[in-house]
Amino acid sequence: MKVIRDPLKLTRLIQGLKRKGKSIGFVPTMGALHPGHLSLINQAKKDNDCAVVSIFVNPAQFGPQEDLSRYPRPLKNDLLLCRKQSVNVVFLPDSKIMYPEGFSTFVNVEGLSGLLCAAARPGHFRGVATVVAKLLNIVSPDVLYLGQKDAQQSVIIARMVKDLNFAVKLKVLPTVRQKDGLALSSRNAYLNKIQRLEAQVLFKALGLARTLIDCGQSDAARIIAKMKELISRKKQAKIDYVAIVDPERLQPLKKINRDCLVCLAVKFGKTRLIDNLRITCG
Amino acid sequence: MKVIRDPLKLTRLIQGLKRKGKSIGFVPTMGALHPGHLSLINQAKKDNDCAVVSIFVNPAQFGPQEDLSRYPRPLKNDLLLCRKQSVNVVFLPDSKIMYPEGFSTFVNVEGLSGLLCAAARPGHFRGVATVVAKLLNIVSPDVLYLGQKDAQQSVIIARMVKDLNFAVKLKVLPTVRQKDGLALSSRNAYLNKIQRLEAQVLFKALGLARTLIDCGQSDAARIIAKMKELISRKKQAKIDYVAIVDPERLQPLKKINRDCLVCLAVKFGKTRLIDNLRITCG
Repeated sequence: MKVIRDPLKLTRLIQGLKRKGKSIGFVPTMGALHPGHLSLINQAKKDNDCAVVSIFVNPAQFGPQEDLSRYPRPLKNDLLLCRKQSVNVVFLPDSKIMYPEGFSTFVNVEGLSGLLCAAARPGHFRGVATVVAKLLNIVSPDVLYLGQKDAQQSVIIARMVKDLNFAVKLKVLPTVRQKDGLALSSRNAYLNKIQRLEAQVLFKALGLARTLIDCGQSDAARIIAKMKELISRKKQAKIDYVAIVDPERLQPLKKINRDCLVCLAVKFGKTRLIDNLRITCG
Repeated sequence: MKVIRDPLKLTRLIQGLKRKGKSIGFVPTMGALHPGHLSLINQAKKDNDCAVVSIFVNPAQFGPQEDLSRYPRPLKNDLLLCRKQSVNVVFLPDSKIMYPEGFSTFVNVEGLSGLLCAAARPGHFRGVATVVAKLLNIVSPDVLYLGQKDAQQSVIIARMVKDLNFAVKLKVLPTVRQKDGLALSSRNAYLNKIQRLEAQVLFKALGLARTLIDCGQSDAARIIAKMKELISRKKQAKIDYVAIVDPERLQPLKKINRDCLVCLAVKFGKTRLIDNLRITCG
């Protein structure tokens, strides 16, 4: 397993592999790898000759009041996990090489970047789109792997890939969950015991939405109200949003008569968790 | 010479060429080709195995009051010129395929995109950066050729290429001029006889700046005042700006004691012309 810190060196390595006809699968991460990441890496290994994983806690996607400095960085363990998964290349740049002095170019998926999570995290998706554009140019993968857990992120990256003609195929893999349904996230580590128990409610609320829709409820406002009611029973839960939206445009739906994305963001103490469920109708 | 309208088809063709180890030189144009473009094409042919020229009048870089609809589109002649120059591939997309419904991703080189020409053309450089990002992803050239005439554009693209890690080398070639010094531009075709004569003054004003600097004048404001005085003698000339700036950051210089870019934009009737001179000091 190669660990490469210099973007140019990685680009040259990849160009060499491509000239030999090798296919490249790419999993961008912020490290603190969990089985959700590992499922992406596993798929990248299966589908391609070469799996590249980036580990980079991207400052451009954190707000000034957010958890950039305390975001977990268990690098040794991350590299161990990558080695175990037979990752071929880990890209491990630092902020100075990714955002050198004078850096001033940003990619913005207008429209989609102002919805859902954007209200609580202004500039977040501009930072995500920008770093993914950079990474795609450095790695030029054949396939890019993302997790369904960050649904809005996946939709925004899909739009960016299409709009800017990146020659990459996007694969979004299902959310990996703990036994009680909690979606795996590096931020789960912030939760104390009570918060961790209470956080079960997120998946239950999504399940409730599915049940209601399965039973014929098509009024989004009613479903959302029931979900909010359920979540609010947990003492530490502070709802940021619960929404039912179009899966591509992320616009709120009033009537559920077609495929939709049920999504939510809830804070437990200082820890903001997100989750979602794609529901297929008709 | 291949003429390709479909981005995906072009990307596949290029990928095939790259696998064979061929190098790609790329000249993006809006058509209405003149010897300025031809010098870029010529260099792209010399440097690379394969020269790709795009012809696309990019609506995203025109303001609502600008000349998008009347911009010259002499396609037959353009293709003839490309054939004469032994261009390998002409990329000829239409607006629908470049900006399909739902398009919403833009690349913005913040800071640099707000200066000089941006005041008169809000959104212009966002449109330029976005289309060039798209074209670089479609063509993935080894070398990108731009003309020094559009100095701000070149500086912005250079910044974008660096910031977003595009694996391309940028070559900026000297402005090609008519005998009287007027920089070649597709927009020169808009000028009537009197305007065309008066437009000589632009290169003369740049020459005046060079002479003053050569003679030891280092006060930018004084040089600019003399240039404006000279230009203002022409009846139809309306000065948009005359500026002396840092060649990379495009910030105005007060004292000329290092390399600088003297640049100007002047309207003759409805036709806005730009020109510039890079001056090396010390």
